[in-house]
Amino acid sequence: MTAAQETAAYDPSNVFAKILRGEMPAHKIYEDDETLAFMDIMPRGDGHSLVVPKAPCRNLLDAPPEALAAVMRTAQKVARASVAALGADGVTVQQFNESAGGQVVFHLHVHVIPRFAGVALRPHSGEMANQEVLAAQARTIAAALAT
Amino acid sequence: MTAAQETAAYDPSNVFAKILRGEMPAHKIYEDDETLAFMDIMPRGDGHSLVVPKAPCRNLLDAPPEALAAVMRTAQKVARASVAALGADGVTVQQFNESAGGQVVFHLHVHVIPRFAGVALRPHSGEMANQEVLAAQARTIAAALAT
Repeated sequence: MTAAQETAAYDPSNVFAKILRGEMPAHKIYEDDETLAFMDIMPRGDGHSLVVPKAPCRNLLDAPPEALAAVMRTAQKVARASVAALGADGVTVQQFNESAGGQVVFHLHVHVIPRFAGVALRPHSGEMANQEVLAAQARTIAAALAT
Repeated sequence: MTAAQETAAYDPSNVFAKILRGEMPAHKIYEDDETLAFMDIMPRGDGHSLVVPKAPCRNLLDAPPEALAAVMRTAQKVARASVAALGADGVTVQQFNESAGGQVVFHLHVHVIPRFAGVALRPHSGEMANQEVLAAQARTIAAALAT
């Protein structure tokens, strides 16, 4: 059995669970009964956001299909709104499962990264973005989502 | 208006549309009324597959939500089966929209890439994989999907 096949139990102490419980702050873009979208604090590109289900699941491998469906509905809305709000030329969507798959926070999440022609993704530097910039981007995308 | 906002029309001459119409071969893993999964012929890792909707859509930005939902249902099945079949330690999911977002073939598709601890993604070399290896991987994943 590999690590992925064992599908480790969900650990509710992860940071996205804390954001969902209101125990940690986030620059929120969108929220509905099943999902939350907020800015990635270590963005790989301008407007990089994350969409998570409210249901506790570790990743794609253990997620209830309806939680995954809800996340993707929201990810599509956020992708479209990000393009409209930021004038992006494209969008890169990434979703990582288990450490070998690139996952760092073990609550299912989808990366929605607006892309601009000629601009490469920034490396994973571990550096936090300016909070005021993130807040402004969240407001801009949220406004586009609301129209 | 950026390229992404213009949402260019769907072009049915793309290679995935040809695969869907049976005009080009593919190492198929799974098929249902709404989706098809098959091996990527330029895999970035062993077992790298693609999931496409049968509905004609360019990418996440123009896809009907139900087509996206169907693709993700299948992607989840394929991800789980790939882990079981290949003993993978994780899975990386990628979905590219417009050229700036990394898209090369303009029919919505989701990359499902099994990952193995310590093994990096291979670069986009443009080199085709051995067809017999791809066929064997497709059979192995399909068998895991059927159980």
